[in-house]
Amino acid sequence: MMTTEATLTMVDNSEPAGTNDSLKSPISADGTPELGRVYEVPARHGRAVRLKRGQTIKIINTYGTQVADMWAFNAGQMSEFMSMEHLHAWIDRVNPRPGDQMVSNHRRPILTFKTDTSVGVHDTLIAPCDIYRYRTLGVEGYHDSCADNLRLALKAIGLRTREVPGSLNLWMNIPFDGEGKIQWLPTVSKPGDYVEFDAEMDCIVVLSACPQDIVAINSNKPLPVHFSVH
Amino acid sequence: MMTTEATLTMVDNSEPAGTNDSLKSPISADGTPELGRVYEVPARHGRAVRLKRGQTIKIINTYGTQVADMWAFNAGQMSEFMSMEHLHAWIDRVNPRPGDQMVSNHRRPILTFKTDTSVGVHDTLIAPCDIYRYRTLGVEGYHDSCADNLRLALKAIGLRTREVPGSLNLWMNIPFDGEGKIQWLPTVSKPGDYVEFDAEMDCIVVLSACPQDIVAINSNKPLPVHFSVH
Repeated sequence: MMTTEATLTMVDNSEPAGTNDSLKSPISADGTPELGRVYEVPARHGRAVRLKRGQTIKIINTYGTQVADMWAFNAGQMSEFMSMEHLHAWIDRVNPRPGDQMVSNHRRPILTFKTDTSVGVHDTLIAPCDIYRYRTLGVEGYHDSCADNLRLALKAIGLRTREVPGSLNLWMNIPFDGEGKIQWLPTVSKPGDYVEFDAEMDCIVVLSACPQDIVAINSNKPLPVHFSVH
Repeated sequence: MMTTEATLTMVDNSEPAGTNDSLKSPISADGTPELGRVYEVPARHGRAVRLKRGQTIKIINTYGTQVADMWAFNAGQMSEFMSMEHLHAWIDRVNPRPGDQMVSNHRRPILTFKTDTSVGVHDTLIAPCDIYRYRTLGVEGYHDSCADNLRLALKAIGLRTREVPGSLNLWMNIPFDGEGKIQWLPTVSKPGDYVEFDAEMDCIVVLSACPQDIVAINSNKPLPVHFSVH
């Protein structure tokens, strides 16, 4: 840990470009859930939830057409987080499936992918949407984004992340061929499909109900997703 | 920019797990190159080089069998860096090829991929090797790593990065099929193959001659690569 002047003056990527209600609507003061209760991540918003090792989070694609961007951080040290590029090396696959350990940037399992009732189409290649993405799509004012939802949902429980790690994009349908050509398509999941992840360490999971309404990944109609912890 | 107590006490991922000669062998005090001079990145080591907008870096796979991990940072702000997950969204491909803009986490072109004399096999999926990787491979003491080479090469010119961004892994042969299954294979490049990138902004490029000698990606024999700026 450095506390030099250089550290003090180094800008990081923790600050949102704007705000939304995610900042003021945590599920509890520190993100601890009521076990078994079903919480909503409202359309275009984010929520952070604190898991203890051994607990399971269930994430529900209530309407079937919605992408949920997902992150996980070591609850004791926010600089350790679930990392897609480390995941690829760990599982020797691009996309994870039930049974896979989701590893951190320190190559430790942070979650285990336990259950998937959908056909298993998720994405690990694409950065969470951010204000820069919407600028390139022609948006001039503020636009909700998964990157800001992450920042705001963490701030809502008194935490922050210096960077925006690559996200696990649940139900996001980004097919690629053996030549590496990528497409952006609507989800192929069904209403009520859910995934479950077991916590392998005390961690903070953040979910964003992706606000992308220009590219068709959410069928151009952002909707809520739901989750519970047991 | 925050200067709260929370900022001061937040650990980041800037510190190497050990050291090697990369720390003491910058190409110049601030990484500015002598134009046209061919520099070596010794086997298992890293080097940082400062490019001005409009300059071109040529990176040579001198022996053909070597992977070079590559990063780029905005010279004015180290929190803006070339990002593989943003690249995927920008080019709608997994792997870049000549003509592609290499974008930052702020979705701005930082480099343009100009030339590739090899067959074009590079990797954007796999995290740079780090001490955690070598621990999982059974290494007990220190092992050089691309992540540490990044940190050490930056320290050698007075800079640091809070995180280890996902790298562009030049010549790394990680084929994947349409189902997402990944393999780890030796390079298919020829001795003397080179790539060139044009700087789209003043930036710091860091190269690591990958020290992986357990998995066969470098044919189990880490060797130098070379580079020049013109």
